[in-house]
This record gives sequence, C-alpha cells and structure tokens, in this order.
Amino acid sequence: MIGIFDSGVGGMTVARAIEKLCPGYPLVYFGDIAHTPYGSKSIDTITRYSMRNCDFLLEQGAQIIVIACNSASSTSSDALRKKYDVPIIDVITPATEKAAAISRNKRVGVIGTRATINSTIYEKRIKKILPESKVYSQSCPLLVPLVEEGWLSKRETKMILRRYLYPLRLKKIDTLVLGCTHYPLLKDLIQPRMGQRVNLIDSSVEAALFLQKYLTGMPDLRNKITQHDGPSKFFVSDLTTPVQDLASKIFCRNIHLEKINV
Amino acid sequence: MIGIFDSGVGGMTVARAIEKLCPGYPLVYFGDIAHTPYGSKSIDTITRYSMRNCDFLLEQGAQIIVIACNSASSTSSDALRKKYDVPIIDVITPATEKAAAISRNKRVGVIGTRATINSTIYEKRIKKILPESKVYSQSCPLLVPLVEEGWLSKRETKMILRRYLYPLRLKKIDTLVLGCTHYPLLKDLIQPRMGQRVNLIDSSVEAALFLQKYLTGMPDLRNKITQHDGPSKFFVSDLTTPVQDLASKIFCRNIHLEKINV
Repeated sequence: MIGIFDSGVGGMTVARAIEKLCPGYPLVYFGDIAHTPYGSKSIDTITRYSMRNCDFLLEQGAQIIVIACNSASSTSSDALRKKYDVPIIDVITPATEKAAAISRNKRVGVIGTRATINSTIYEKRIKKILPESKVYSQSCPLLVPLVEEGWLSKRETKMILRRYLYPLRLKKIDTLVLGCTHYPLLKDLIQPRMGQRVNLIDSSVEAALFLQKYLTGMPDLRNKITQHDGPSKFFVSDLTTPVQDLASKIFCRNIHLEKINV
Repeated sequence: MIGIFDSGVGGMTVARAIEKLCPGYPLVYFGDIAHTPYGSKSIDTITRYSMRNCDFLLEQGAQIIVIACNSASSTSSDALRKKYDVPIIDVITPATEKAAAISRNKRVGVIGTRATINSTIYEKRIKKILPESKVYSQSCPLLVPLVEEGWLSKRETKMILRRYLYPLRLKKIDTLVLGCTHYPLLKDLIQPRMGQRVNLIDSSVEAALFLQKYLTGMPDLRNKITQHDGPSKFFVSDLTTPVQDLASKIFCRNIHLEKINV
C-alpha cells in the first residue's frame, strides 16, 4: 500500500491528488489529529510524532511513505530517511522543482506554517536549483485554523490572507508555492489577491505527480503495492465532527475515518 | 506546592491570578504545548492527556491541583477526581457560581472552545443554581489561535469577535462568562463589543479567588504546601519562541520555561 501521513486532515488533499493521478493503488492514510497542528511545534516534537506515524503505516503494510505535511517534510524528512528502509517522498522537493522550472523572473514566494518557514528549506532548495533566484517567505499561522473551521469564503479569511500576502505582492514574485497541504482549499481566494499572472504551485498536486513518475520507474515496487487488493484505509488518532466534515469535503464523498490510539 | 496544568500557556492567566491572590505558595505549572490545543479534540483524548498532566504534577510534589483549562475542566474533571486523592479545583465551578450570583436579568452568555461549549457544562451548572435562568452559549474556536499569535488588537480579531458575540448581544444577556483561560487577554476588546453594562466573568480570576477561600479553610493543607520553600516552577512539553513570548507577556516579567518530554 501507499502510506501517507499528516498532522491532521490537510494531507488528505495529497491523498486525494494521489487517488486521482495514481488510480489502482491502495492507500493507507494516517492523520495525527490528537497532536495537530504540527506547524507551531518544535523540530524535536514533530520528528518524534513523525516516526510514530511511520511505524504505524509500516505495520499497516505500507511499502512507500508520503509525508503529506509540509511541517513534517521540512523538519523531519532527513531523520525519517535515515531510520527507515522504504522510499520516503516529501511534499517539498516536487514543489521546489516545479517553482524553479516555471518562474520566469526568478522571484518566488513561499507561504507555510511557522515550522515550515522557519526551517528555510524551500528557500535553500530553490536556490540550489536556481542560485540567482530571490525567494521571499511568509509564515501564515492562522490559515490552518481558518481552513479547519471551514471559513473558506468569509470576509475575515480574505482580510487575513490580504495581510499575509501583501508583502509578497510588493516583491513582484511571479510564482507562489502553497507550502502547506491545507492551502489548496484557499486557492480561489489566493489567486485574485496575488493577481492572475502569478503561478500558484500546489504542493499536494506536485507530490502526487512526483509519486506517479517515481512509480513508473519502479515496476517491482508497483507490483508489491498492488498485491494488496483491499480498499484504501483512513486512520486518525482522534475524531471529531469538524474533522469528519472536512475529510468528506476534500474527497467530495463520504470518507470512513477509523480512530486508533497511538 | 500548588499544581496547575493547562493545554498550553492560556492557563498562565490562572497561575498569574493565583500568584497575586495567594502569595507565598509555591506553584508548579505544566503547559502541555506538545498536544495543544485541547479545545478541538475529543473527550477521550483530553482525559488521557489530563491524567498524564496530573501524574507529572504529583511527581513534582503538588498537594492540590488546579485544572487551569476550561476544555479539560469541562470534559475530564469528574474522571480526575475519581482517580486522584488530592483536592482538584476546576475553572468552571467558581465562574458559574459568580455568574449565577451577579446576573440580574438571569440571562447569561458563555463563550469557550468547541469542547467546552459542546460539553454544555456551564449551562447545566448555572441552571442548577438558577433554574429559571436562560443560558446562551457560543463556541469561538478561532480566538485561541488569534491570542497565541499575539493578534490582540488587530482589526481581524475585532471582526471575528463581533461575529462570535453578535448572537449573544441579541439575547440581551447581562453577564458573559469568558469560558477559556485565553480570553482574559481579549477582555478589552470583548467589553466594548458587548456593551459596558454586561458583566464579564473571568474564569481565571474566579478560580484564583475560589482557591484562596478554599485554602483559608484548610490549615493543614496550607502548611503542607508552604513546607516546600523552593521557587515556583514552570514546565512545558514543547517550547517555541511564541510560547515563551506569550508567557512573559502574561506574567509581565521574564518566565523561565523548562521543557520536559512526556
């Protein structure tokens, strides 16, 4: 199975993109709702939680793991790759490659949680591919709670977005990385606030495209994954009504979430 | 020592009030930042975390425990009293008694996190004292993240507050319980939005007053607590810069937070 984890439900935007782009592969998803959000926590704590999540996914039969969380990808992916033998795909690498490839003026913006932005990983990675680029980062800690409340078209959300995005507009960026798996749900509000000419890079879609390409080159792994012919499974470490609602909203269908104790 | 726990730093408004009203007693505080916030989690999960917090405070030498968190008080205080022998003081009882005592028109409002409001504990407790009262509740899930961001005077915070408080204004309440230990930090924004004639009940201050009165009647316990003559201690399960800043803001002095792994 393809194992996917996130601090909560945001990573389901990645799971949904994988389902669309890699149909026929069973997924096992784990949302660590009992410890959500990761984005405001320290590197040590995020790494500890991420290892626990990987252990669980491997027990469930995952042969490859997708870190569907920018905060965990930016702070813990190296530690996870060191510890585990299975291939580990993060959401940062695909998005940085895409950003470096499509920016014309080489001025790229990145938005994310405080943990992701403080790690400066996007900046380092984009500059590694495009040393002459300018990368401008902005942490947007209130966007995750706003999305989790379902305030996707409220006036306050638009104002808060304008406050976060205004400094990036001034920098005349032509490409903006949505460096948090919750943010695709705000795409329709972000695009008009940045202007129609700014490319938005959806880290969820890019991770799914990357995985699709990766699996194409790995026939053995592909066979192993598809040997498991059960349905996809979705686990969470805590379950409340808003979480269930948001999951169904992301998948546009009813999703059965199974609660487990970690 | 007087043990105090909260899901994060909000409970420090209680610790600060206790320090002022009960000087001379050493405090041991635990903020469960690694699992914050509790307010959006399930009863099971909050109770599990609360027990772990009590175990830690007892190990540190607490002879009485104050649950400085409305979400934990409303969902888990019965379970904690059943499990532990020490006196356990919650933040709900003192606030409901005060609200019932000072409301003239017997129309009381309560604001809190989703966990607190869904528990309906304030409503039940106030109606037990004042059966003829009307209690109107409103969950305000975005206020904790706004306070933790330090957005205490931003226009967006005022707008979100207006949206949450407007339905309570329509009910013509004369008393409003601030049923979350983060909310005292928003008192100056809440009062003008509710009108100057509405009494605001600060659950942090009421809990400290209740503790002061309780200790007056318990000379043996008082002696036991003051036998420990070390300074007050503040522990957290995770530590980041915004947490450190908020702690110092609440205490109006530099507070040393010690990180421990739970």
